Amino acid sequence: MSKQELDVIGIGNAIVDVLTQTDDDFLKEHNLEKGSMMLVDARQAEHIYSKMGQCIEMSGGSAGNTMAGIASLDGSGGYIGKVGNDQLGDVFAHDMRSVGIEFDTEPLFDRAPTARCLVLVTPDAQRTMGTFLGACVELGPQDIKPEQIKRGKVLYLEGYLWDPPKAQEAFVKAARIAHENDRKVSLTLSDKFCVDRHRESFLDLVDHHIDILFANETEVMALFETDRFDEAVRQIRGKCEIAALTRSEKGAVIVHAGGTEEVPAAAVDKVVDTTGAGDLYAAGFLHGYSKGRSLAECGHMGAICAAEVISHVGARPEASLRELVQKKLG
Amino acid sequence: MSKQELDVIGIGNAIVDVLTQTDDDFLKEHNLEKGSMMLVDARQAEHIYSKMGQCIEMSGGSAGNTMAGIASLDGSGGYIGKVGNDQLGDVFAHDMRSVGIEFDTEPLFDRAPTARCLVLVTPDAQRTMGTFLGACVELGPQDIKPEQIKRGKVLYLEGYLWDPPKAQEAFVKAARIAHENDRKVSLTLSDKFCVDRHRESFLDLVDHHIDILFANETEVMALFETDRFDEAVRQIRGKCEIAALTRSEKGAVIVHAGGTEEVPAAAVDKVVDTTGAGDLYAAGFLHGYSKGRSLAECGHMGAICAAEVISHVGARPEASLRELVQKKLG
Repeated sequence: MSKQELDVIGIGNAIVDVLTQTDDDFLKEHNLEKGSMMLVDARQAEHIYSKMGQCIEMSGGSAGNTMAGIASLDGSGGYIGKVGNDQLGDVFAHDMRSVGIEFDTEPLFDRAPTARCLVLVTPDAQRTMGTFLGACVELGPQDIKPEQIKRGKVLYLEGYLWDPPKAQEAFVKAARIAHENDRKVSLTLSDKFCVDRHRESFLDLVDHHIDILFANETEVMALFETDRFDEAVRQIRGKCEIAALTRSEKGAVIVHAGGTEEVPAAAVDKVVDTTGAGDLYAAGFLHGYSKGRSLAECGHMGAICAAEVISHVGARPEASLRELVQKKLG
Repeated sequence: MSKQELDVIGIGNAIVDVLTQTDDDFLKEHNLEKGSMMLVDARQAEHIYSKMGQCIEMSGGSAGNTMAGIASLDGSGGYIGKVGNDQLGDVFAHDMRSVGIEFDTEPLFDRAPTARCLVLVTPDAQRTMGTFLGACVELGPQDIKPEQIKRGKVLYLEGYLWDPPKAQEAFVKAARIAHENDRKVSLTLSDKFCVDRHRESFLDLVDHHIDILFANETEVMALFETDRFDEAVRQIRGKCEIAALTRSEKGAVIVHAGGTEEVPAAAVDKVVDTTGAGDLYAAGFLHGYSKGRSLAECGHMGAICAAEVISHVGARPEASLRELVQKKLG
């Protein structure tokens, strides 16, 4: 393994997205809550898939999307996640490595298949997701290599990792190694329902283990069980070094020891598919952070990257984010 | 099996497309001829794929794309093609059935995997393809069910089927059954290099077995080994009932017993990816034909469908072709 320092190391559920355009009736019929991510078992996944129209497949996974964003910004990175030894696993691994992200996690052999996320995009550009975790449930501490974690300036963890049972241990092990080596640890709360499932753990994490927190307003309000954003801001202050709280078209609020930065959203001609907005916001922010940019600049970079990914179908960047950021921020 | 009559039955190589945006240098490096389809073996496919950037996967195959177009026009249809019993095979079958196209060909078990086509889209919107035929090489006459062929008003065959060894027999068997039942048989020449590989067979087919021929100008000129389009038109006249010869933005020339129709191309705001242009032209034309429209109208329908598919990435329609045609032709 190379000794090169890496900007960001991401750990997440390694998932292939199966996307289709659909309508609100379809969501109702299958009891899917619009805008959220639901966990489904193999049987449910098969059933919903059988009712979905023609789909496209592309690598996804929250932290996977973030790492693809880091690569598109010309940053360096590594990814840790568990695929199966099957065609979709090969697709996921190819897509990660082909953009220059290290990906060496051993695939799961002849047990569960690679995870799939059924992504239903409605005409209002919202995405609703049903995830079958498949091989992801086997990600565990054995997949965390201390030598690699040490090399990452920032460790980035997705909240969704709290769903599969053994990944929490991997998560805690990686965070411990990072901190022992004076690295930063960041977390995204991922999804409102994910917060509901794991509130106590997340509160403990945020209090004791996380330096940089990413959350949208719904998620951070769910964390503190409040319906007021300003109350959530008040509560998060001081709990972690930086909290980047996104509010869609209203921009983001960055809460830090020295105060608060308000950063507007970047302009988008037409919002086509919001899948990956938060993932790419984190990519832009963390890339700026790893390069020593100011927090306001990090926020702008996050906004630019999020704007790119919501302007087309799919959760990974199509344009060069490096060029976009250079054009807009220099 | 239902007894319902079907508008079109397509037979083709059942392929999943693996698409990426690339540049001319990449094509040169891998000796790929721009705009053409090359056959590659498993090793070459693996090598080229390993050098391609992040990809998206979607069902493809020339006749498969045409059938997806028929479905989007609210036509009825069946598809015959061989996938492997693997994840990509499941994806292909799902995408065909999910739009309402009958697809019952038995998958190949535990031998070759589902075919893949590496589609390289350059900034000029041209696509260059490397196809690994995989399970397609096993499609044979045993996969042709007379009861199904009889139900199709038009049988549609892709020229690419001449590449795998046993498919030719399937092709001839299906054409014979169709004609015995007073059905029409149509063929697309598929690709200039495909014509070069199989010129004698194609000439014999066109002379004796084909009612409706689809070809672009390069292909039909290759068929008659001439560099003059008007000479190719002269030679094709009388050989088959209808020849729909497409010329990209110059529109199409439809040669038939009663004369010649010239139909302009449909307007496109921006050509993004020409993959599937010919496949969707055939879909629009054949749907019109199966509904008894005039040849000029069939040509307009082909042009409208081709214009939709080249306006976005991927070879299958994103918008409802039925609505597009209704808006433009009534």
